[in-house]
Amino acid sequence: MCLGLDTPPAHGQSTGAHRYLRAVPSRDEPTFSDAIELQPRGAGHFDGSIIPGWDVRGIPHGGYLLAMLARAACLEADKPDPISIAANFLAPPEFGPARLTAGVIRSGKRQSTLSVRMVQADVVRVDATVTVGTVADGEPRAWSADAVAPLLPDPQDCIDLAAASRGGDDPGVALHDRLDLRLHPSTGWMSEQPSGSPVLDGWLRLHDETDPDLFALLMFSDGFPPSIFEATGRAVGHVPTVQLTTHVFARPAPGWIQSRCRTRVQGNGFVDEDCELWDSMGRLVATARQLALLR
Amino acid sequence: MCLGLDTPPAHGQSTGAHRYLRAVPSRDEPTFSDAIELQPRGAGHFDGSIIPGWDVRGIPHGGYLLAMLARAACLEADKPDPISIAANFLAPPEFGPARLTAGVIRSGKRQSTLSVRMVQADVVRVDATVTVGTVADGEPRAWSADAVAPLLPDPQDCIDLAAASRGGDDPGVALHDRLDLRLHPSTGWMSEQPSGSPVLDGWLRLHDETDPDLFALLMFSDGFPPSIFEATGRAVGHVPTVQLTTHVFARPAPGWIQSRCRTRVQGNGFVDEDCELWDSMGRLVATARQLALLR
Repeated sequence: MCLGLDTPPAHGQSTGAHRYLRAVPSRDEPTFSDAIELQPRGAGHFDGSIIPGWDVRGIPHGGYLLAMLARAACLEADKPDPISIAANFLAPPEFGPARLTAGVIRSGKRQSTLSVRMVQADVVRVDATVTVGTVADGEPRAWSADAVAPLLPDPQDCIDLAAASRGGDDPGVALHDRLDLRLHPSTGWMSEQPSGSPVLDGWLRLHDETDPDLFALLMFSDGFPPSIFEATGRAVGHVPTVQLTTHVFARPAPGWIQSRCRTRVQGNGFVDEDCELWDSMGRLVATARQLALLR
Repeated sequence: MCLGLDTPPAHGQSTGAHRYLRAVPSRDEPTFSDAIELQPRGAGHFDGSIIPGWDVRGIPHGGYLLAMLARAACLEADKPDPISIAANFLAPPEFGPARLTAGVIRSGKRQSTLSVRMVQADVVRVDATVTVGTVADGEPRAWSADAVAPLLPDPQDCIDLAAASRGGDDPGVALHDRLDLRLHPSTGWMSEQPSGSPVLDGWLRLHDETDPDLFALLMFSDGFPPSIFEATGRAVGHVPTVQLTTHVFARPAPGWIQSRCRTRVQGNGFVDEDCELWDSMGRLVATARQLALLR
């Protein structure tokens, strides 16, 4: 669902059922927590609202939707934390009201597993299976060298994607005014100089500077542009997420989240993407893997 | 669901609801394809049979169940191949009849996504979301060094796990008489000399020597013992799979499948495990990641 910096629709042009809007953040705009808030309607039903701002050129961001589905599961199971979520993105949702339904498949004392669906106009947009429970404030153990955070220049010495995605007539990507994303200074795809290797390193935080909770972490797990851009350039166009599985291993410490995303294999019209998220203590707090369509 | 070589129940002791049985293969026993066969009962219902033999010390093997769920999805959608499956193992099933229900969430021309559940005695044992379609006979592209098959001695120079799992009063693991699994000769956990690094390399094929199809590939994606054994020894006991996501990138060539499984992170009472599967042409045909409970 993270679609990168491709050309925005021309002025007045419609993208699907809704007009493309570039929502500039204001002081009184909702925080990320507000943006994923749900109203319980009983019997496993919740009302959410997909708001402009958490989108990439008019298309609601997949990580934002993921966090909303996880919220529905936690509310329905009355357990605080998402532990594992496997989501299928079936049709892009539209801005506006969305109905979420959450049903417990198995209820346990420590963990429960739920099926959650986001529906608009009788079409399932996202389907997820979510395991919820309590995430410990523990010290995850990295068993392999690539589970240790790689060296990365400080955020202020990295490329601010909000600035890099704007220019000329291009209003940029609304999401990047809310998700503060800094890429390694050597990242070349934005300037049409991809390295040839599909690996992206960078930092993430919320622009409102609230510290990351587990729901923000889920959003971050789909937060980067497609790492395949750094191999092939952005000419590959949209790389829509088909399936995304995120596992949480610890509650993140306050501060920036460091991430590495990389594509390992391309085949049968798909690419994969693995994503690690380390907190400001250098702990591997979450991992994600997605399968995305390469048109 | 791959539980390794821990102590079998003593003679006459019950494991859960069923008696522990060590099924020795005979000439007329069902092949793997037979073992996952389903009888359509209409309205998305299918009858399967979980048979002894495809189990680890009395507990049906997770990969075997995964393949059965994928079969239900393909039958219901009338599409030949599993492309992506995300499964949650909620309660261990028992030998005997199992009811599978498959419902289309989204139907597309090229791909369809279904929700599939395996139910016994009104308890959901396994829940999966499956994307089905057609897998091309193409050449997947490995974009990273670790997507290329590592050097590995030939199968005949590796450790045959069927033999290694037997000894004294231990009848061994029934699965290993059907799933021919050869581990790198340096693998130490079976002889109580784990290397300290949770990585397993080896080969897999069906003992009936039929070539791997995509359903066998799904079974293989949960085929290895837990790689954490090679770090800590088998004293950690059962490492039951909680969640498993497998993506397919190409149709495998005939012959042995090479695999590497490794644990990267341990936290919040869980370990992860990444698994790559290369066919006899050295192509990365599938990847899997699981989250497992470390008690």
